[in-house]
Amino acid sequence: MKANIMYAAGDVRVEELPLPELQQPTDAIIKVVAACICGSDLHPYHSMHAHEHGEGDAMGHEVIGRIQKMGSKVSGFKQGDLVIVPFAVGDNTCPFCQEGLMTSCVHGSFMTGCQAEYVRVPQAQGSMFKLPDDIGDDSPLLPSLLTLSDVYGTGYHAAVMGRVNENTTVTVIGDGAVGLLAVLSAKKLGAKQIILMGRHKVRTDLGIAFGATDVVPERGEEGIARVHALTNGEGTHVVLECVGLMPAYEMSIGAVRAGGVISRVGVPQYEEAPVGFASLFGRNITLTGGPAPTRAYMEELLPDILDGTLEPGRVFDVTVDLDGVPEGYRAMDNREALKVLIRP
Amino acid sequence: MKANIMYAAGDVRVEELPLPELQQPTDAIIKVVAACICGSDLHPYHSMHAHEHGEGDAMGHEVIGRIQKMGSKVSGFKQGDLVIVPFAVGDNTCPFCQEGLMTSCVHGSFMTGCQAEYVRVPQAQGSMFKLPDDIGDDSPLLPSLLTLSDVYGTGYHAAVMGRVNENTTVTVIGDGAVGLLAVLSAKKLGAKQIILMGRHKVRTDLGIAFGATDVVPERGEEGIARVHALTNGEGTHVVLECVGLMPAYEMSIGAVRAGGVISRVGVPQYEEAPVGFASLFGRNITLTGGPAPTRAYMEELLPDILDGTLEPGRVFDVTVDLDGVPEGYRAMDNREALKVLIRP
Repeated sequence: MKANIMYAAGDVRVEELPLPELQQPTDAIIKVVAACICGSDLHPYHSMHAHEHGEGDAMGHEVIGRIQKMGSKVSGFKQGDLVIVPFAVGDNTCPFCQEGLMTSCVHGSFMTGCQAEYVRVPQAQGSMFKLPDDIGDDSPLLPSLLTLSDVYGTGYHAAVMGRVNENTTVTVIGDGAVGLLAVLSAKKLGAKQIILMGRHKVRTDLGIAFGATDVVPERGEEGIARVHALTNGEGTHVVLECVGLMPAYEMSIGAVRAGGVISRVGVPQYEEAPVGFASLFGRNITLTGGPAPTRAYMEELLPDILDGTLEPGRVFDVTVDLDGVPEGYRAMDNREALKVLIRP
Repeated sequence: MKANIMYAAGDVRVEELPLPELQQPTDAIIKVVAACICGSDLHPYHSMHAHEHGEGDAMGHEVIGRIQKMGSKVSGFKQGDLVIVPFAVGDNTCPFCQEGLMTSCVHGSFMTGCQAEYVRVPQAQGSMFKLPDDIGDDSPLLPSLLTLSDVYGTGYHAAVMGRVNENTTVTVIGDGAVGLLAVLSAKKLGAKQIILMGRHKVRTDLGIAFGATDVVPERGEEGIARVHALTNGEGTHVVLECVGLMPAYEMSIGAVRAGGVISRVGVPQYEEAPVGFASLFGRNITLTGGPAPTRAYMEELLPDILDGTLEPGRVFDVTVDLDGVPEGYRAMDNREALKVLIRP
């Protein structure tokens, strides 16, 4: 089968690999119907060093597929079922899963190798989410359904952890797919004022379509001043930080209101950061967020997609086949593409 | 009048000062009935450098007193009223105060100079909390009432911000007055398991009396292992960090359960700290807390003290007059005293 392998920064290759096999009785093998490239895939695309023995990393953690094979401990599904797989898989029965935190599942792991024809799903019983039988491989809903695997669930996690509601003002930092879907999520949770910090007009226009009430293209101190000007000098109750770089963290501190919440879902590309009296403590700022347990949100977010109320799949602006994935990385990295859909 | 002035680390002196005067129409002057030395006063007691022109700092921010004079904009009180003053004063009318966050009041400031015979209270109208008329200057309830000015309200703030309830397990780091009252607060909010990390038996015994179910004297990795052993290997849902030093922050990360909350009320003696994937983000840990808006909790916490249900004043184990304050600092610093009550 065809699969996309990353060998080093900037080096993604389409290769022929053997079909994946069941390794555990809790595994399933699915045939990929739709996958995509994630903004977080761009981090290794910038920084990955070649492995010592020359092997590469099988890329891709977002997928919708049809079940081909199931291990002996996978039940309640049948061959051919169309399923969404969350990027973080787990048993869905451990204490953490039961609390909705599959990213901390005691049997949990992260999906890899979805930018391929077939992929192995660990902990398939707990992780796979079956879609209605009338959804075909060419359904126009597929792009939106695929966002439940990661980016929509991640934006929603940011908003939920940030305790967004009809009484909170919100700043979203980042106009990538997660940032735009954090806007959509804040809107869904009732926020009346949603300030989107981003400077790419095509993206921020989509952010406005998703519910942003204001767009702030400025960054740093200038950006913070704009947020203050829009909020009576106070900042917003919630900041959804969807980037993961230190300047975004610093802008979050500047943009958040005293007593407010910074909710991060951009994977931090730093370990240490200011948290003392001058940054978080003095104004009782709460810092929250983390990898999104997207499986836990699928039941809740599905209906709006099925009935056409929300179209999170609008974040996909380029579609490629498996041979087009290396070019897809290049286009996303150059910001020519917002998010690349893969149809094998 | 007598007042205690700190000139440098280890150098507290009793001096004769002029009586304080009203400076703003929002001020009041109160005669000190009870004051105390705070654990946070020990930070400058360790590290203060002498000021360039030789002046000192008037110490003390916790006080109960009787009103002597009021500015023209202070109403609803009468001369002689016995009032508690929160360590962070404010107008109690601005948007932040209305949300219970007087520490971010637009007219807010911090009390100073309470280790004296008289003290000026800024924003007296919003800050002073009148006690019932039948409480005399020698009431046995005074020590407990005085804790509402800072330490009890601060421990309670930690627990409230940490979202402690009957379903959360709790670790409290620190067996100082705030830590012990964080235990009392967690118990009041219904926590069933409260692990107190502290190594001074007199203090941890009081912690047990306040509701701690387990005491862990070990620190660092050993302490973390003990907390894990007590919690099914998971850590506790909430950690109340009542110290403010980096080792306590690091223990908090080790002791907190995935998806849990670290709530800090110990004033951080650091600005940068780990917050990335390996510390907070990867396990969806929430970091919260800050200076406690103790005025906001007085109405809620008073009844249990008045009817004798709770005795937070048990944290005071030494009483001095104003001449005894320098010796009180020494005793607290040497851990001979847990918390020193001052009766002028």
